[in-house]
Amino acid sequence: MADLKPVKPLSGFIELSPEKQRVFDYAANKIKKVFETAGFVHLDLPAIERAEVLGGGSDEVSTQIYFFEKGDTKMGLRYDGTIGFARYIAGHQQGIFFPFRSYQFAKNYRGERPQKGRYREFYQMDIDIIDENSLSENYDAEIIKVMSDGYASISDLIGEVVVRIGSRSFWNTAFNYMELDSNKSNDLFVLIDKKDKLSDDDFRLSLIDLIGEKKSEEVIAFLSTDYSKINTKNNEIKLEIDKLNQFENKLKALGLKNYKIDLSIMRGHGYYTGVVFEFFLKNYPEMSAIGGGGRYENLCERFSKKQFIGVGGAIGFSRMMVALLDEDKIKTDTSFADVTLLIMNDNCLKYSLEIIEELRKANVKTIPFLDTDKKFKKQMEFANKINAKFAIIIGEYEVKNNQISLKNMKTGEQKTLTMKDALAEILK
Amino acid sequence: MADLKPVKPLSGFIELSPEKQRVFDYAANKIKKVFETAGFVHLDLPAIERAEVLGGGSDEVSTQIYFFEKGDTKMGLRYDGTIGFARYIAGHQQGIFFPFRSYQFAKNYRGERPQKGRYREFYQMDIDIIDENSLSENYDAEIIKVMSDGYASISDLIGEVVVRIGSRSFWNTAFNYMELDSNKSNDLFVLIDKKDKLSDDDFRLSLIDLIGEKKSEEVIAFLSTDYSKINTKNNEIKLEIDKLNQFENKLKALGLKNYKIDLSIMRGHGYYTGVVFEFFLKNYPEMSAIGGGGRYENLCERFSKKQFIGVGGAIGFSRMMVALLDEDKIKTDTSFADVTLLIMNDNCLKYSLEIIEELRKANVKTIPFLDTDKKFKKQMEFANKINAKFAIIIGEYEVKNNQISLKNMKTGEQKTLTMKDALAEILK
Repeated sequence: MADLKPVKPLSGFIELSPEKQRVFDYAANKIKKVFETAGFVHLDLPAIERAEVLGGGSDEVSTQIYFFEKGDTKMGLRYDGTIGFARYIAGHQQGIFFPFRSYQFAKNYRGERPQKGRYREFYQMDIDIIDENSLSENYDAEIIKVMSDGYASISDLIGEVVVRIGSRSFWNTAFNYMELDSNKSNDLFVLIDKKDKLSDDDFRLSLIDLIGEKKSEEVIAFLSTDYSKINTKNNEIKLEIDKLNQFENKLKALGLKNYKIDLSIMRGHGYYTGVVFEFFLKNYPEMSAIGGGGRYENLCERFSKKQFIGVGGAIGFSRMMVALLDEDKIKTDTSFADVTLLIMNDNCLKYSLEIIEELRKANVKTIPFLDTDKKFKKQMEFANKINAKFAIIIGEYEVKNNQISLKNMKTGEQKTLTMKDALAEILK
Repeated sequence: MADLKPVKPLSGFIELSPEKQRVFDYAANKIKKVFETAGFVHLDLPAIERAEVLGGGSDEVSTQIYFFEKGDTKMGLRYDGTIGFARYIAGHQQGIFFPFRSYQFAKNYRGERPQKGRYREFYQMDIDIIDENSLSENYDAEIIKVMSDGYASISDLIGEVVVRIGSRSFWNTAFNYMELDSNKSNDLFVLIDKKDKLSDDDFRLSLIDLIGEKKSEEVIAFLSTDYSKINTKNNEIKLEIDKLNQFENKLKALGLKNYKIDLSIMRGHGYYTGVVFEFFLKNYPEMSAIGGGGRYENLCERFSKKQFIGVGGAIGFSRMMVALLDEDKIKTDTSFADVTLLIMNDNCLKYSLEIIEELRKANVKTIPFLDTDKKFKKQMEFANKINAKFAIIIGEYEVKNNQISLKNMKTGEQKTLTMKDALAEILK
């Protein structure tokens, strides 16, 4: 016999137990339902793209892409939902209607060093609204609300969620007013983005290093004051504050509750241009953002000469769910059926098969033990492992009398009934 | 500006329109529901496996695998549901219960030459029941019934399905009786498998070439006679016929209707050892099998010293659905919402956002047009494209009177109502 092959999946790849997978699927379906009720259509894009579509620069993500060749074609695996989406929009602009709203729920691939909370294959839930040339900022508010509704639909599993909302355009205006060149601005975006990870002192010193003491004081004042109380004589900054205030009113009209305007929210990606936002779990403040997004311009510029403007976000679905499941912060149910069906001997098989058909027709989740040669003890062991609410036992007595024996696996109580009465008891 | 990147997906990769995707998802969810009601748990296995797990022999499939490297690790994309399943069972035998029943709905990858009905990325729905050491053939009947129920759950889309059921063990016994060596047997399996693609004469001549005239007559007699009327003096073949008869009775007890015992069904794969079966669409007899499966032994032999015996099948989901959708054999609905909401000007925004929230809370699929600067004509164009059943129009009159204008997009009738009455009308 040849050597046995390894049975574990590759490091960084998720393989959930059946009971965890069930919770995972339940949560995904709940959120999808919210997105669909808000009119977002499902896009299921290929996991493989041309290498030139994925890019191949020298930034961190590029080094993580799985590239390969087949024949003359260089290709690679998708590493986020954005690139395929941009290509899709540019390619299908004739066939779809704008503003176009869609969601994705797909596996992404990144060959990064496996570590806690990081996977090489993971699901992300992307949601976007995009239009040609212009898109009202009212949609930004709508996206935030719909994503919040998505999280809220699984609050039984994850608890409450808070969304922190920042504004790239506020900072662009402020940096302009401070007369920072674009290099400094970019470095400053990155520094503010990292603020939560630094001590106040370290943040302050890095800030002074970058833009000097006076401007640092201004930045710190912007960050430490409730945005509506920011004191400035600059009219353009005042306008940005007004815009934020109007934005907040839209969120309120949409019924959004757990939010906070927080100017330290930046999002890493360079392509955001307006509102940016991040979602956090209230019960697990130590966990980093479980999702986020923002407004972007020119998303399709690599694929089309037309300008497409959009607002979008992503839920880090595997990251969030697998972390909570693995740390037992979500309880799982180990009952795999409503009914297990046990059969005393081969003479009872035909009758039992008819019973199985009747149960399933009535939508009763039924797992039969069909090996009639096995001892009853072995069959009961199986029933216990399945952890069904009921066991149905079919022996010659039941067949002869056209009845079934129904055992309540919790109470141990057992009755012999007609199928009709048994069904009523099971569905009760 | 740099050259624009291609917007089309790679050849052989599927990108459905939103209305087709919706039907595709509807069908997948229907079948999943049937599998879950029969107690099959969802397995979501990685799309990437170690190269040594995928194998890499010289057969046709191996040349189609997408292999690649990252660091020192050689890996590749899954090309079917079986290899990962075998690895999973061998690796998780402690944590799961036997007989274990599971389904998969996952993308598989094959770098074959694109042609009609063949894709490089496609969904397959795998379903298996597996046990250690032995597994009653009653489960074979159950799998066939559950798969049939899966297809039946989307009969509104695909029409009726017929399952043709063959028996490898019948032929093994027959070949033994004919004293064919294993090479001849294998060639004969392949030849009978191809029978449908050959003329009767060509089949007969190839048969004679392979096993001579006398044995050919016997094989043709087996194939052309209803199995229950096969005339043989050999007791072992008689026993196989009895077994088939018993198997048929189990299928009947489970309520299976559209089936035919057909000894020409072989399935290509070498690993089948007992019952084999293939599903066909009644309305599209020109289409090849839309799914199939059979009993296998030693599925996990590359991963475990223990013997695991199972019965399983797969629905060629993308193949079936995309073919029917692309040939317009399935009608799609182009209505993307129950309600489109149009807003006359910015003063009506707050009130409108509250209405959106109320509609979605009541599970009314609502797509608002939120760009209040756009002309009404443009907004109505959007409403027409969305093809919603209703348009809600909010102007200053509606805001002032706390009402909404509801337009039935089919009849053109428009009423001004309270939100409560409008909701009742929409949900009617």
